Amino acid sequence: MDSSSARKRGRPPRAFDGQLDTRQALVRAGVAVLTEKGFAATGIDEVLRAVGVPKGSFYHYFASKEGFGAEVIDAYAAYFARKLDRFLRDPVLPPLERIRAFADDAERGMRRHGFRRGCLVGNLGQEMAALPEPFRHRLLAVFEDWQARMARCLEEARTGGGLRPDADCGALAAFFWIGWEGAVLRAKLEQDAAPLRRFTEGFFRSLPLAGPHA
Amino acid sequence: MDSSSARKRGRPPRAFDGQLDTRQALVRAGVAVLTEKGFAATGIDEVLRAVGVPKGSFYHYFASKEGFGAEVIDAYAAYFARKLDRFLRDPVLPPLERIRAFADDAERGMRRHGFRRGCLVGNLGQEMAALPEPFRHRLLAVFEDWQARMARCLEEARTGGGLRPDADCGALAAFFWIGWEGAVLRAKLEQDAAPLRRFTEGFFRSLPLAGPHA
Repeated sequence: MDSSSARKRGRPPRAFDGQLDTRQALVRAGVAVLTEKGFAATGIDEVLRAVGVPKGSFYHYFASKEGFGAEVIDAYAAYFARKLDRFLRDPVLPPLERIRAFADDAERGMRRHGFRRGCLVGNLGQEMAALPEPFRHRLLAVFEDWQARMARCLEEARTGGGLRPDADCGALAAFFWIGWEGAVLRAKLEQDAAPLRRFTEGFFRSLPLAGPHA
Repeated sequence: MDSSSARKRGRPPRAFDGQLDTRQALVRAGVAVLTEKGFAATGIDEVLRAVGVPKGSFYHYFASKEGFGAEVIDAYAAYFARKLDRFLRDPVLPPLERIRAFADDAERGMRRHGFRRGCLVGNLGQEMAALPEPFRHRLLAVFEDWQARMARCLEEARTGGGLRPDADCGALAAFFWIGWEGAVLRAKLEQDAAPLRRFTEGFFRSLPLAGPHA
């Protein structure tokens, strides 16, 4: 460590008053950076720099990079669950239209960030071979949560007569998230929203829609 | 560099006679390691160790880690194109059954490697934010190649009356690879083949099959 960062160690960080704010700011910055680059390619330094926290003080807030990563996953999961509910429980739209609205919003979001940011859970899932094993269960639990929220929306469509009565909403929701993560990955790679739209179209083609006279 | 590796620099590597063999062995080891862990998390040392090549001699074979990565992508693409043709051009099976046979083989392959290895192109695509920019076009070209091979198979199904005459085989093939990469990612994360099967089922449900009397 160079003398300037040694000198800074322990001093309160520039932009925040309390410890809680700094922790939160570090987690928030972690969400942004990990959504873009994943875990392995992200240096703690980069996160600290984004928040203006001196290098020496990271371990004042987190026990390890792994502990930090776990909190970042939780923060992203909470943020994304709120976003999903905003769309998938929107009483103004019919259930299947809510899924389209979510996909349209995701497209706008990726475009806003120049297709650099994808899905933090997808990124970390892809890196799993190089990540701490406890992350696996955490990431799977997040996918299960999203799947349950999507399944509830599809069940509403089934109850409302949009989907056939024998539609397996759990399986359809699982299919959605499996493919959606692929679509986000591909949209990042192409720096274009076409893969999101192409997947959404394919997903809707795969739905067992109720006939017009059902 | 420690004295033992300095001493080894320039000596012929243990397990191979010619330079060409060593290069090929390094690329082959690179394919295995990058299919498991991606690019950022892979150290050159690990690849060298796998082949038994002394640390100092990497730059004798490759100009940079980036140049090595590019060759690894090309080698994987060539390997995978051969595999795809073996399935998607199999004259013994009807075209749509060939796609199922490919998916079944992928499942066996992932199981054989304990669900640690996924798709090298998917891995690197996910890491793109942290990778050299020229990789992007290389990876996209690989997806386009796979897509063209899949589209040809679907066109055979259309010609043979398995798919409706208005089926957009290019769009269906794009949908397949977008979602398939998501399925491979999820299968790695779950250490289970269920996501591959679930995606394949959804893909088949999405196909515009010709009616029984078409």
